[in-house]
Amino acid sequence: MKSIVLLGTGNLASHLFTAINKTPGFQIIQVYNHNYRSLESFSQIPVTTQFDEILKADIYLISIKDDQISRVSENLESNGSLVIHTAGGKPMEILNSHERTGVFYPLQTFSKNKKMNFQDIPICLEATSESDLQILEELAGELRAKVYRIDSAQRKSLHVAAVFVSNFVNYLYTEGEQICRANQIPFEILLPLIKETAHKAGIMSPYDAQTGPALRNDKQVIEGHLAQLTTQQKEIYTLLTHSIQNLHGKEL
Amino acid sequence: MKSIVLLGTGNLASHLFTAINKTPGFQIIQVYNHNYRSLESFSQIPVTTQFDEILKADIYLISIKDDQISRVSENLESNGSLVIHTAGGKPMEILNSHERTGVFYPLQTFSKNKKMNFQDIPICLEATSESDLQILEELAGELRAKVYRIDSAQRKSLHVAAVFVSNFVNYLYTEGEQICRANQIPFEILLPLIKETAHKAGIMSPYDAQTGPALRNDKQVIEGHLAQLTTQQKEIYTLLTHSIQNLHGKEL
Repeated sequence: MKSIVLLGTGNLASHLFTAINKTPGFQIIQVYNHNYRSLESFSQIPVTTQFDEILKADIYLISIKDDQISRVSENLESNGSLVIHTAGGKPMEILNSHERTGVFYPLQTFSKNKKMNFQDIPICLEATSESDLQILEELAGELRAKVYRIDSAQRKSLHVAAVFVSNFVNYLYTEGEQICRANQIPFEILLPLIKETAHKAGIMSPYDAQTGPALRNDKQVIEGHLAQLTTQQKEIYTLLTHSIQNLHGKEL
Repeated sequence: MKSIVLLGTGNLASHLFTAINKTPGFQIIQVYNHNYRSLESFSQIPVTTQFDEILKADIYLISIKDDQISRVSENLESNGSLVIHTAGGKPMEILNSHERTGVFYPLQTFSKNKKMNFQDIPICLEATSESDLQILEELAGELRAKVYRIDSAQRKSLHVAAVFVSNFVNYLYTEGEQICRANQIPFEILLPLIKETAHKAGIMSPYDAQTGPALRNDKQVIEGHLAQLTTQQKEIYTLLTHSIQNLHGKEL
C-alpha cells in the first residue's frame, strides 16, 4: 500500500481523492491546502494548512491551479519521495527542486458536482525514472484509466489541442445557442447533431468527416448565412470557412 | 395508407426510403432521379428518370441537392398533391408553383453507409396549411422522430447555427488532430474530452459550461499556446479567444 499526501482541494483533487481511496494499492493519508475552509469537506482524514505539518508519504500529489504549483513545490519537503503534478499546461521541470518527479495528467473536463469515472479518462504520464513511471502506471491502472506515456513537450501540444477541441468547440456551441435564442428556436434541436458530430470523430478522421457549405464552396449558401450574422459571428464564420477551404483545397 | 413519390437518391433520400417503407401509414411507390445509375439500388420498386412518367401520389418528397430543388419542383406536375422538400437551407416558397407545399427537414448529418435511427433525429416541419402540417407530423411520428414546427425564417437561422455546432466544430477537431499528428500523439487521447464537451451541452447551457485560458484570461498560458501554432491556427486561436472574452466580459 502506497501512501499519498494530496496537495489541493479543487475539482480534480476532489475527484482524485474519492477515486484513489477506493483503490487497494494507494491511500491518501492527508490533504494540504493553504485555505482551511476548502479542507472542511475532507474531514474524514488529517488535513493541514501548514507545510511543516505535512506527513511523510510515498507520493506527494500536487493538484492545484497551474500558477500555484511552483510555490507549493518549493515549500514542500519531499525527502526523496515522488512528487507529481496533474497540470496539462506545465512541464515536469517545474518540480525540479525535488529528486523524483512526475506528471499525472488526466485529460478531461471536471465539474465538481458531476461524478467522474476515471475508466473513461486518458491519463498522460511522465516521470524522471522508469521505476517512478511504473508507480504512476500502477496508480492509473488501479483507477482503470487508459494510460499514455506523454512527455512534457507532447503534453504542451496536447494542452493546446484540447483548447481547440473543447474550449473553442464549446464556444461554437454557445454561438449556436445564441443564434437559436435570437430566433425563438429551442437549442435542444441541435443536440443530436452535436452528439453525432462528436461521435463521428471517434470512427473516422475529422478531416474526412468534414461537410458543409465551406467544403463545397457553396457561395450562395455562405452569403445567405453571412447576411444573418452579427459582426463577431461573421468574422468567425469567414475565418473558419477560409480555413476549411485552405486545408482541404491544398490537399484535395 | 398514403403514397409517396421520392425525388432524389442521395444520403438522406436513401435513409428516408428505408425508414418510410417500414411505417404502416406511408409507402414510397416510385423513385425519380435524372440519372438512371443512381436508381439501380432502388430496384425493388418502380423508378424513372422522366418527369412525365412520375406516378400520381399523395405526397411528392423532393430530397436532392439544394440547388436542384427549383428545377425539379418546376418540372413536377403535382395535381393538387402535397409537395415537400427536405432542405434546411431553402425556404418553403421555393415550391410555390404548387398549391400545397411543405418542408420536412431532419436536422442531422447523414452518411450513406451508416445506419441512421430517425428516433434520435429532430425533424423540422412547415406547411402552407394546418391539415398538411398534420400529415407531416404523422409521417415524422411514424418514423418516431422528435417533431418541431419551424418556419422558413427560423429554419434559415437553424441552418447557420448547425454550421457553427457541426461543420465548424468538426474543423476544430481536425485542427486538434493535426496538432496531435505533428507531435506523435494519438488523436484518440482527445476523444473522451470531445465526447464529454458535447455531452455537457445537453445538461447545461454552453455559455455556463465555458472553461479554459480564454475565459480565465490566463495570458501566460495563452502566449505559450500561441507560440506553438501555425499562422492559420494562431489566427483562429486569437479570434476565438477574443470572442470568448468579449461574450463573457460583457455579461459577467
